[in-house]
Amino acid sequence: MAMKLLFFFLFALWSCRAKPIHPHPLDPLTPSEFNLVQTILQKSYPSSIKNLTLQYIGLDEPDKPLILSWLSSSKSKSKPPPRRAFVVARDHVHKQSLEITVELSTYSIVSSKIYTGHGYPLLSLEEQTVVSLLPFSYEPFIESVKKRGLNISEVACTTFSVGWFGEVKTKRVLNLLCYYMKGTANLYMRPLEGVTIVVDLDEVRIVKYVDRFIVAMPKAEGTEYRASKLKPPLGPKLKGITVTQPDGPGFKIDGHTVSWANWAFHLGFDVRAGPIISLASIFDVQEQKYRRVLYQGFISELFVPYMDPTEEWYYKTFFDSGEFGFGQSASSLEPFTDCPANAAFLDAYYASSDGTPVKISNVFCIFEKYAGDVMWRHTETLIPGQVITEVRPDVSLVVRMVSTVGNYDYIIDWEFLPSGSIKLGVGLTGILEVKGATYTHTDQIKEDVYGTLLADYTIGVYHDHFLAYYLDLDIDGEANSFIKNNLETVKVKHHSSPRKSYWTVVSETAKTEADARIKLGLKASELVVVNSNKKTKPGNKVGYRLLPGSIIHPLLLNDDYPQIRGAFTNYNVWVTPYNKSEKWAGGLYADRSRGDDTLAVWSLRNRDIENKDIVLWYTMGFHHVPCQEDFPVMPTLRGGFELRPTNYFESNPVLKTKPPKNVYSPNCSSHP
Amino acid sequence: MAMKLLFFFLFALWSCRAKPIHPHPLDPLTPSEFNLVQTILQKSYPSSIKNLTLQYIGLDEPDKPLILSWLSSSKSKSKPPPRRAFVVARDHVHKQSLEITVELSTYSIVSSKIYTGHGYPLLSLEEQTVVSLLPFSYEPFIESVKKRGLNISEVACTTFSVGWFGEVKTKRVLNLLCYYMKGTANLYMRPLEGVTIVVDLDEVRIVKYVDRFIVAMPKAEGTEYRASKLKPPLGPKLKGITVTQPDGPGFKIDGHTVSWANWAFHLGFDVRAGPIISLASIFDVQEQKYRRVLYQGFISELFVPYMDPTEEWYYKTFFDSGEFGFGQSASSLEPFTDCPANAAFLDAYYASSDGTPVKISNVFCIFEKYAGDVMWRHTETLIPGQVITEVRPDVSLVVRMVSTVGNYDYIIDWEFLPSGSIKLGVGLTGILEVKGATYTHTDQIKEDVYGTLLADYTIGVYHDHFLAYYLDLDIDGEANSFIKNNLETVKVKHHSSPRKSYWTVVSETAKTEADARIKLGLKASELVVVNSNKKTKPGNKVGYRLLPGSIIHPLLLNDDYPQIRGAFTNYNVWVTPYNKSEKWAGGLYADRSRGDDTLAVWSLRNRDIENKDIVLWYTMGFHHVPCQEDFPVMPTLRGGFELRPTNYFESNPVLKTKPPKNVYSPNCSSHP
Repeated sequence: MAMKLLFFFLFALWSCRAKPIHPHPLDPLTPSEFNLVQTILQKSYPSSIKNLTLQYIGLDEPDKPLILSWLSSSKSKSKPPPRRAFVVARDHVHKQSLEITVELSTYSIVSSKIYTGHGYPLLSLEEQTVVSLLPFSYEPFIESVKKRGLNISEVACTTFSVGWFGEVKTKRVLNLLCYYMKGTANLYMRPLEGVTIVVDLDEVRIVKYVDRFIVAMPKAEGTEYRASKLKPPLGPKLKGITVTQPDGPGFKIDGHTVSWANWAFHLGFDVRAGPIISLASIFDVQEQKYRRVLYQGFISELFVPYMDPTEEWYYKTFFDSGEFGFGQSASSLEPFTDCPANAAFLDAYYASSDGTPVKISNVFCIFEKYAGDVMWRHTETLIPGQVITEVRPDVSLVVRMVSTVGNYDYIIDWEFLPSGSIKLGVGLTGILEVKGATYTHTDQIKEDVYGTLLADYTIGVYHDHFLAYYLDLDIDGEANSFIKNNLETVKVKHHSSPRKSYWTVVSETAKTEADARIKLGLKASELVVVNSNKKTKPGNKVGYRLLPGSIIHPLLLNDDYPQIRGAFTNYNVWVTPYNKSEKWAGGLYADRSRGDDTLAVWSLRNRDIENKDIVLWYTMGFHHVPCQEDFPVMPTLRGGFELRPTNYFESNPVLKTKPPKNVYSPNCSSHP
Repeated sequence: MAMKLLFFFLFALWSCRAKPIHPHPLDPLTPSEFNLVQTILQKSYPSSIKNLTLQYIGLDEPDKPLILSWLSSSKSKSKPPPRRAFVVARDHVHKQSLEITVELSTYSIVSSKIYTGHGYPLLSLEEQTVVSLLPFSYEPFIESVKKRGLNISEVACTTFSVGWFGEVKTKRVLNLLCYYMKGTANLYMRPLEGVTIVVDLDEVRIVKYVDRFIVAMPKAEGTEYRASKLKPPLGPKLKGITVTQPDGPGFKIDGHTVSWANWAFHLGFDVRAGPIISLASIFDVQEQKYRRVLYQGFISELFVPYMDPTEEWYYKTFFDSGEFGFGQSASSLEPFTDCPANAAFLDAYYASSDGTPVKISNVFCIFEKYAGDVMWRHTETLIPGQVITEVRPDVSLVVRMVSTVGNYDYIIDWEFLPSGSIKLGVGLTGILEVKGATYTHTDQIKEDVYGTLLADYTIGVYHDHFLAYYLDLDIDGEANSFIKNNLETVKVKHHSSPRKSYWTVVSETAKTEADARIKLGLKASELVVVNSNKKTKPGNKVGYRLLPGSIIHPLLLNDDYPQIRGAFTNYNVWVTPYNKSEKWAGGLYADRSRGDDTLAVWSLRNRDIENKDIVLWYTMGFHHVPCQEDFPVMPTLRGGFELRPTNYFESNPVLKTKPPKNVYSPNCSSHP
């Protein structure tokens, strides 16, 4: 068994560590490329480099036309476009942010400019660690801990972005909140309420300190979640269960290119966005060729505003991607629990604030999912003397990353179905952000406490999670249009039918961006991205449609500062013409941003989007009213949506899929 | 391997065929009980029995108080309530429907009355088979087939309910539609358009025949779906994959009672409703006892109106449950494809129209589902010098039935999660109902054709699927209330906070039925059924909330006949006080009903529902605009919703679940 296990891991290692046969121009920067960038920057800024921290280093993607022509040419021969890195650096002396583009092949800096707009770059883990230690040598804080009768060696502090609330002048500051560990690993359940610590990231010092009040420390009992520490009664008990593929996985990983069943795509990693899916194409069995569906897709921003206006909480309006880095916050996935036994794992690299490459092991897992679902079926009993039953089990391919932004864990799935659907799933789990309070029972609560009393002295504060997806669909080519197929009631003209009404489809093509701003749930429409220049044999427009999941709308006032910054949530759906510079729905400089560089602002230009290379933006999310079940660690809350082929194929693309060979439960062992 | 397979099946047989240790008062009627009913009826109606067909025979459930007192008493000692059958019979001579209640223990008829209201009972399979053969000895039809140059031996006809369109007097009639098989098993793709055949079910004869026009017969090419008949190119190819449980399944089946992990429930079968889940309770690890969640749940009605007002199509407004019997239409599930390898299968019985019991093998499958998802997780990096990662994989229990109502296959899942959630899933697959037309290209289409041109001469007609769920929740007891937790924006009083707004929860308890009629999507609320008499330690009301999936609303006019009959779709959510006689949202006599016995009518009584034994009704569904991918068999389209514990437990009920033992992929064989 141990040998088998070894082989299994060797396979995984081989399959995901294998050197790419030919590097892809969309591959993320490699460790050696990060080192190269570091060297080039050190050479170029010899004097000031010690004052420079590198807040973001990522691939500066070749322009789309370059990629497309490289693809259309026979790749093996043609030289891929040059490799470039985009760097955002922070000069702590002049308190400026710099945008630097580095060309790797020529070891040169292509461009370098000082950013003069509002907002600040991605926060680096290093600077957050450094400032989070400042309180421990800061007398007033040590005093506050004493006053609360706590042991400072059991205290840990962490960083919170402070947002923007109309200040004319802002500094690059963070708030620190501190938690008490003693008796639990679940420190988020035990905040030191009443203490406000503001640190300046450029000056690396505490610039404001307030100890406003003391409330009882929430208890540690019942907050432990480590299996090794659990005390009875335990349960419920579950039998061992796993997924088995006797002939091995069906997918291939070549460098960053993944192919499985009828799908092929490129999987990149970005320190800010996390997974980036590019060039997703599906093999058309009838046409015997791959056809493009998605040029690129990723989570553009994640907006998490809390709903407590009080002094210690009002500012909590986080941009988890643009402030904290969704990729940077990725957790190493655990085999067998984060992903099933048949998963392969991939590593990724980002650069620390001095440019040194940092590895995240097992940042992605890729696995074939079989949930016992049915791809399609029919039982036919109408034919005299026979019963026909044909069933195809459903199997899909999942690419998963988990990003743990402080207390919350986000499970991000990209799921590819042989039927042509792409399902985008998000699982919310991890730990609530709670507020210490004096209450032990709701009867004691007389005013709005902005949350749910979950346990003694513990309030789970109301909040939202909005996820904005960037989806540059290229439906069988770049020139696409966005169509609203509105289902409209038709009144039957008197007595022309025994019916009084029916509904029919009235198509409406969005001409400009304004036509494509959609609040979902108001009317019945199918939203389709089509290639207006390609039709099926019967003459339908080749397309993919958006199947939304559960829909939410923002509840903050439009002119409230957090909503101005998160204005990309004002609509669930937006369509913009492709523009390389429009990637981040909340702006490139999200920290303390003022909403002047958001999707909502770009869309106001109201550009033409008909028969153009367009980008579909979809915002999904959750209003989260915490309940006691979410305490002390919350069961996964799932959401998602689907991109589904709609007259993209001439007929059911999986009609001619043979059912996979039956696999019978063998004498598997639960012990390695 | 063969041996292993044998053992596997023996296990399955044993686990699901095992005799109940003690029969349960909610068990469906057994074959011998059906025979008993048949005998009693023959004795009681000696003369007229030959004119009587039995349209419905099902368990007449003991009144809820009886069941509850039986449950609370020590079952082993106390005698269960008496077994009764409810029968709806049709007297073909007097053209009357009879309602008969039979007491089995006393071999007596408790009550018998003639039904005088509108509408007709469930259609039996036998009568449908008989009338569908009438055309083949009917000259005008034979002529019509000749005229179309078709071979009558390749023709098959089937039955369609005709609905109600304001007729003052109705007869118990059906329409027949006929299809052409030649060259395909997919006869639904090849309708004999233009022919209308009306048959009288009481008189068993054709009462109307019209041959209005001839259109080209859709081609057979590309409509074949049998794996054995498929011609290359095939694909996509999928590797074998299965679910493995080395220590066997974790669930127990005792008669009709299923227990797994922390769940226990009763699984019944009804010829009309299909699966009936009763007495679903979850074991509370902290309280060390089972607590009730659901007294009973089932699909009450399924409304499928088509959107073509023309002479041959206008009437297609089907009630798949009340007219055709969702249970009666159940298909035998195929191991390995309809359900995974770790599934156990159960049979069910119903009575044919003469009362003889009929067996449906493998009508249900029950399996533990592991989709590679995460039950909960957290990675903690804040504690100096250590990284904590705790992950629990998600496993659930699925009860599945597939009902094939003519062309469509509905996959009905009841999924129970250890975290306390119940997920109700529906998968739509099977074959579209298409209309023959003269078109081969959309450019030829000048008027509304009420559907999508899918292939030559083939239009997929627009339609809806509405599923109404009956959910008699008993949240920790019978006395429950329905609460709307409305998320409402609060404007911050000037300068009391840097924020201008936030949202908070304003609770609203529904006093009467009118307060609980809800069109979803209009405002942000959490809908919770609570036990107002039980609170958690912190004082929150013990409850379960409804998490809707994708939401639809009817688009027919309110005064249109089909909408009057399907008025239970006017709202997504309704709450009624428990009433044994209110089970079928579309009425007990759904065939040709006039909407006078629907949920919408009951609700108008506007009864008190606060702190009462209440029933939650939820209607979900799909507007279906067919696309070419749905041709000739459609990939499964999924929908569903979730019932999720909300302050039902004091804390996360799966916090103390140990992860199941890792199971490593062994050398399974794909060959038995």
